[in-house]
Amino acid sequence: MDTLPGKTVERLSQYRRRLLNLLDDNVEYIFSHELAEIIQISAVQVRRDLMLLGFSSVHRKGYPVEMLIEVIGQRLDDEKEQNVAIIGMGNLGTALASYLNGIRPKLKIVALFDIDKKKEGMEIVGVKCYPFSELGKVIKSKRVSIGVITVPQTSAKKVAAQLVKNGIKGILNFTHIPLNVPSNVSLEEYDMITSLEKVAYFVKESQEK
Amino acid sequence: MDTLPGKTVERLSQYRRRLLNLLDDNVEYIFSHELAEIIQISAVQVRRDLMLLGFSSVHRKGYPVEMLIEVIGQRLDDEKEQNVAIIGMGNLGTALASYLNGIRPKLKIVALFDIDKKKEGMEIVGVKCYPFSELGKVIKSKRVSIGVITVPQTSAKKVAAQLVKNGIKGILNFTHIPLNVPSNVSLEEYDMITSLEKVAYFVKESQEK
Repeated sequence: MDTLPGKTVERLSQYRRRLLNLLDDNVEYIFSHELAEIIQISAVQVRRDLMLLGFSSVHRKGYPVEMLIEVIGQRLDDEKEQNVAIIGMGNLGTALASYLNGIRPKLKIVALFDIDKKKEGMEIVGVKCYPFSELGKVIKSKRVSIGVITVPQTSAKKVAAQLVKNGIKGILNFTHIPLNVPSNVSLEEYDMITSLEKVAYFVKESQEK
Repeated sequence: MDTLPGKTVERLSQYRRRLLNLLDDNVEYIFSHELAEIIQISAVQVRRDLMLLGFSSVHRKGYPVEMLIEVIGQRLDDEKEQNVAIIGMGNLGTALASYLNGIRPKLKIVALFDIDKKKEGMEIVGVKCYPFSELGKVIKSKRVSIGVITVPQTSAKKVAAQLVKNGIKGILNFTHIPLNVPSNVSLEEYDMITSLEKVAYFVKESQEK
């Protein structure tokens, strides 16, 4: 199957997130226009994405929620587990370790790292913290393929270089320092300021009207 | 001027973020294809967005970085300052308070809230923490228009309802509980799992090829 564009992957992830919420509320079926409304995109877009997953557009009762979740998982998730490490155990790293741990069965947080030797051996939601000097060793022994960078801005480039050097395949960068990585490494940069600026813009616009 | 679509606002925010990095590195001019490459979108899209801001597409030396930053600011930012409160001073809220504070001159973090009375009076990067019971009072006295929700999942809906009741105009939701707000309140939901799933997907795809 063809690799999906990044924007489609984002939407599938958002559908799944919402569908899991609906499942918790015992909702069994959903129409494309309902899902579209929740995500704030067009129903046409939702139907197009779901057709890509093999769902025809004719559903009297709507799409079956549980099956949708499963099919999205088949497309997005690896068959094997993917192991994730978080580098930088300040407030953000600590928050992410708890937040991400266990949220998707196929994405396992298996190691945390910090430069501060005092944090060595510390555990967050059952995951151990290692000194940064053991990065290479632990990446190998725990087969980590994805690194999440939550270190201070000044260390971001150094940490990314070390991750790449030690064979990491994907990086999620939470600092606002742009990173350069080889083309065989997937890079996602997630800046929290963009979401805040978006809210702020629409607040401004609503007040001007 | 017409209100921009959300996706355009996101891209303008991303352009500015990158342009500020370039300015730090003393870069004076940039071509649309260079900016496109940094953001990983098409040069056509960049040129279209910049034309929307009044930049013609003919620039021998490229677009002037500093002027671009200024023009993006004129379009995105409010002329007055917009005041922001963060609700929930766990690890994520604490991380965000430091991260967001001072990052954009027109977005001011002016108050933090927590249900834990012990955190009352605590300061993070010079911003005071108030008990949640004083939400309404502080929103009024400090003219807060935007609320960032970083409370535990179980409190998300209650906090959102209180924010709306107290006249907040925009909400940035960091929990994975979907919120319902009146249509005059701007809502942005920022799920960190989507970025991780995106990286994980492309790692998986690169290994299958």
